[in-house]
Amino acid sequence: MVVKSELKLVKNLQQKKYRTQQQLFVAEGVKTVEELLSAGHMPQVIYCTDESLLAAYKEDIRIISERDLKRMSSLKTPNKVLAVFEIPAASEIPLEGWIVALDGVQDPGNLGTIIRLCDWYGISDLVCSLNTVDCFNPKVVQATMGSIARVSLHYLELESWLQTYPHAVFGAVLKGKNVYTAEFPDRGVLVMGSESHGITENVLELVKNKVTLPQYGISSVDSLNVAMATAICLSEIRRSELLIRK
Amino acid sequence: MVVKSELKLVKNLQQKKYRTQQQLFVAEGVKTVEELLSAGHMPQVIYCTDESLLAAYKEDIRIISERDLKRMSSLKTPNKVLAVFEIPAASEIPLEGWIVALDGVQDPGNLGTIIRLCDWYGISDLVCSLNTVDCFNPKVVQATMGSIARVSLHYLELESWLQTYPHAVFGAVLKGKNVYTAEFPDRGVLVMGSESHGITENVLELVKNKVTLPQYGISSVDSLNVAMATAICLSEIRRSELLIRK
Repeated sequence: MVVKSELKLVKNLQQKKYRTQQQLFVAEGVKTVEELLSAGHMPQVIYCTDESLLAAYKEDIRIISERDLKRMSSLKTPNKVLAVFEIPAASEIPLEGWIVALDGVQDPGNLGTIIRLCDWYGISDLVCSLNTVDCFNPKVVQATMGSIARVSLHYLELESWLQTYPHAVFGAVLKGKNVYTAEFPDRGVLVMGSESHGITENVLELVKNKVTLPQYGISSVDSLNVAMATAICLSEIRRSELLIRK
Repeated sequence: MVVKSELKLVKNLQQKKYRTQQQLFVAEGVKTVEELLSAGHMPQVIYCTDESLLAAYKEDIRIISERDLKRMSSLKTPNKVLAVFEIPAASEIPLEGWIVALDGVQDPGNLGTIIRLCDWYGISDLVCSLNTVDCFNPKVVQATMGSIARVSLHYLELESWLQTYPHAVFGAVLKGKNVYTAEFPDRGVLVMGSESHGITENVLELVKNKVTLPQYGISSVDSLNVAMATAICLSEIRRSELLIRK
């Protein structure tokens, strides 16, 4: 049985204000919760409709009914597990390897997909401007398919941070060097703006290496979705590493 | 004023059964409807809350209230225009250039994004297995951001079609040739399976050129989203064309 105060906490955590206040976030679904646990994230409580699941975390598990899960869930079709985790403490941003930086990406699905891409491409840290959607937003957590467990997010004033960043700053813009012929060093930051507004002016001044995805279709296609554009840029970065290593 | 029978038609068209029966589909939003119109798609009726919009199509426009639009819309936030279009007649699949073929992709957002990618990469035709989600599903139409206007979709029995396809058949699989070192000809078909099931066995037998996206992160990331994987494969195909042309 889930008591009213528990239900209220979980529901409140759908809002950023409460997540910041409580330093907690919610993750749902067997896979996502399992990946968070195995990456060492600290659960406050794990609600589960099935005793046989997550046996290793027995102490933190509360068995609840499907009906109670449905009441707490933000999903149309809740999936057996819902857990409340502590928001991880801030960590240092590494200066080795590549980092992705997002400037004002507001769509939760796009951020979730980009976190998944970082995980796939072995990028451990993602820097976000303060107006980028919160990574512990339930829709973001869901869209990462568990990758949120392994990628560290840093929300900060992007312009000031870039001013102190010691390596190459790349960014995707509409009129830059063809990304297929660009040369990528072995470390740097890749700045991606939002689909509608692109990279903001002040930040753009710090982007010394502007790259563009050439378009092959007819001109009426405005732009690729930011997650797609990130995928292609990261693919090019890793591809050039592969060739350098050879 | 929208009468009951109109409302019912629009609502029914959210279901594939009625779309097939009536050979009609619904598109929403100024941008999507505008792109369909300018690509020559035939509107049956265009509902619009603002007289100043789409002036060139005045004859087909019905001015309605915001309230009526809300009643018809499948969107949380309807956007001024909702139009009913004729489903285009089947066209021939071109044998020049590249084609993308989807095998059992069921997520509407993924199909929508892939249609947008085809448009971006100048791929005019997308072949889909019969169990791929319907491209006139409202969520797909929405996710294409207007690209549905310019890409032709063909639903067919994939295995039989591939047996008659005269050029190279490529497909993304878990264990194939590294996509970054693969050589792509100037025409062919790229087969993409669903994230959960991959390419079905019978179809896989016809995929003579198996490519794989190398992973850089740690091994627990299962796979990229099918739209991301398609983006990267198409990027490689166009990149190699760029180099051949040079």
